[in-house]
Amino acid sequence: MINRGKARAYGNIALIKYWGKRDEKYILPMNSSLSLTIECFYTETEVIFDDSLSEDYFYLNDVFQDKATTNKVSSFLDLFRQFADINMKAIVNSKNFVPTAAGLASSASGYAALAAAANIASGLNLGPKELSMYARQGSGSATRSIYGGFVEWQRGTSEKDSYAIPIDDAKWDIGMVIVIVNSKEKSISSREGMKRTVKTSPFYKVWAQCAEDDIKVIKSAIKDRDFEKLGFITERNGLMMHGTMLGAVPPLSYWEPDSILVMQIVRQLRNEGILCYFTMDAGPNVKILCRLSESYKIKERLRQVFAEDQIIVTGPGPGIVVL
Amino acid sequence: MINRGKARAYGNIALIKYWGKRDEKYILPMNSSLSLTIECFYTETEVIFDDSLSEDYFYLNDVFQDKATTNKVSSFLDLFRQFADINMKAIVNSKNFVPTAAGLASSASGYAALAAAANIASGLNLGPKELSMYARQGSGSATRSIYGGFVEWQRGTSEKDSYAIPIDDAKWDIGMVIVIVNSKEKSISSREGMKRTVKTSPFYKVWAQCAEDDIKVIKSAIKDRDFEKLGFITERNGLMMHGTMLGAVPPLSYWEPDSILVMQIVRQLRNEGILCYFTMDAGPNVKILCRLSESYKIKERLRQVFAEDQIIVTGPGPGIVVL
Repeated sequence: MINRGKARAYGNIALIKYWGKRDEKYILPMNSSLSLTIECFYTETEVIFDDSLSEDYFYLNDVFQDKATTNKVSSFLDLFRQFADINMKAIVNSKNFVPTAAGLASSASGYAALAAAANIASGLNLGPKELSMYARQGSGSATRSIYGGFVEWQRGTSEKDSYAIPIDDAKWDIGMVIVIVNSKEKSISSREGMKRTVKTSPFYKVWAQCAEDDIKVIKSAIKDRDFEKLGFITERNGLMMHGTMLGAVPPLSYWEPDSILVMQIVRQLRNEGILCYFTMDAGPNVKILCRLSESYKIKERLRQVFAEDQIIVTGPGPGIVVL
Repeated sequence: MINRGKARAYGNIALIKYWGKRDEKYILPMNSSLSLTIECFYTETEVIFDDSLSEDYFYLNDVFQDKATTNKVSSFLDLFRQFADINMKAIVNSKNFVPTAAGLASSASGYAALAAAANIASGLNLGPKELSMYARQGSGSATRSIYGGFVEWQRGTSEKDSYAIPIDDAKWDIGMVIVIVNSKEKSISSREGMKRTVKTSPFYKVWAQCAEDDIKVIKSAIKDRDFEKLGFITERNGLMMHGTMLGAVPPLSYWEPDSILVMQIVRQLRNEGILCYFTMDAGPNVKILCRLSESYKIKERLRQVFAEDQIIVTGPGPGIVVL
């Protein structure tokens, strides 16, 4: 017996950040977060449950993965197998479509696509709300990649109501320019960085409270299509998260010299009347929220300093696509 | 009638930062701070009270200063004139001795030297405790430049007991390497930056509490001559101050790409076993606390990236010198 499922999920960039768990097992966040799904980057994953298999196999970009990596996928599939009462092993084929060689985080689109494919293959056919809760247990940010446009991951009160909801399709001249800053330094993973920040930064509690307030502000900005307010709160929230990390012991800083350079260029463009705002995550790359119609002007300016393949221009992406 | 006084005061670099006033008039800080007086940078100032003058004259580096600048000096001299009951105007000659053309903050050594010269010229001959309280009213950081070595500016409970005390002469293989990072961006003054941070950063209260704790830690590190502990708390406190600024509205960031580069070099040197730690103030320059005996190794590494005149090596400086 063979059951197949295949789906595509897009990456997302948090505008109000998720940085810290209140529950490590169920991946429940300290605060609600809000992201923009982007179309430049996606993962396509096929899950094949096959009763002739004696173990799970995981291929990523056509490369057979080792035991440790495969075990993570197996544990995630177990959530579906248990709920659907399936006793079959699986072959998982996953491909990341990235516009450049330089790495962009893939856990959001990766776990969202895996959840969507497993949802079909297992015959569970859960709705998007339930699907986002499954994706959450693979990677927090995957919760939001179920939907397109602006998406909120609601903090919730327990593992039963911490899921994503679609806020707006973002089809009103919203774009993003991503600058890939090459890093030679090894950085600390999001998972480890979050843990350290929650545990040791005296700023953490204040941060989580402010982020909840920022969610209200950004939702009202999106509702009013107030791009300036949207951008301002995005930039502020991101910097505040990085400020919180600077309070960790030992301090955490993901910034590279070129990250600062991009921030300076963004401020300069803003002084010239081009509305654009930066945000950063657990790495040196900088994401610039802008008007899609102005994204090529921004790219042009960045090209004075950065190479063609360091700059990605993207519009909002859709939610899960069943293939 | 003519009364003269002349003195030299050295600059200082805060290891536990002063960033925010609880009283703007008397310049009372939110938290105690602790600095290292450095010998590479000093100001020499002569104050001449002369009853034949009809107004105050202020020369800085042999250049006659405009009304606005002279008025600040006049107001400061008034503190001494009032207390000493002197009714004479003054000529003030002030010279900054800096090892490079690039600007380093001069208000600490500037107001400390002016206070010391006015103290002599006015005939008040106050002791160092009182002198530090006078200097404080010119510029907060000047409070600490009255003494050499490690100096604490005690927060105090009122304008009568917020003054500096000498902690240690720092003559135990303590040095500093200062990297002058050229900036094209105009930054916001310390005074304005502090105000904004106190008023708008949700992190501020937590910061001020932590800084008071850091004072205890650094004093015990100095007492034990525990250089690693001294450096760790220095770096942490500085980063935490910058994290607090990132929480301001709008966010404040004084970092330049080259500032990050210096931080990376410091971390790298530390990985190689050279104990050194960075700290930054309201500007892009980076100050590296190190063993004086290892300062030349650090300079050598920095010279791979920075020019000779961007790097200053210094030992601890003395307190006020009467000339």
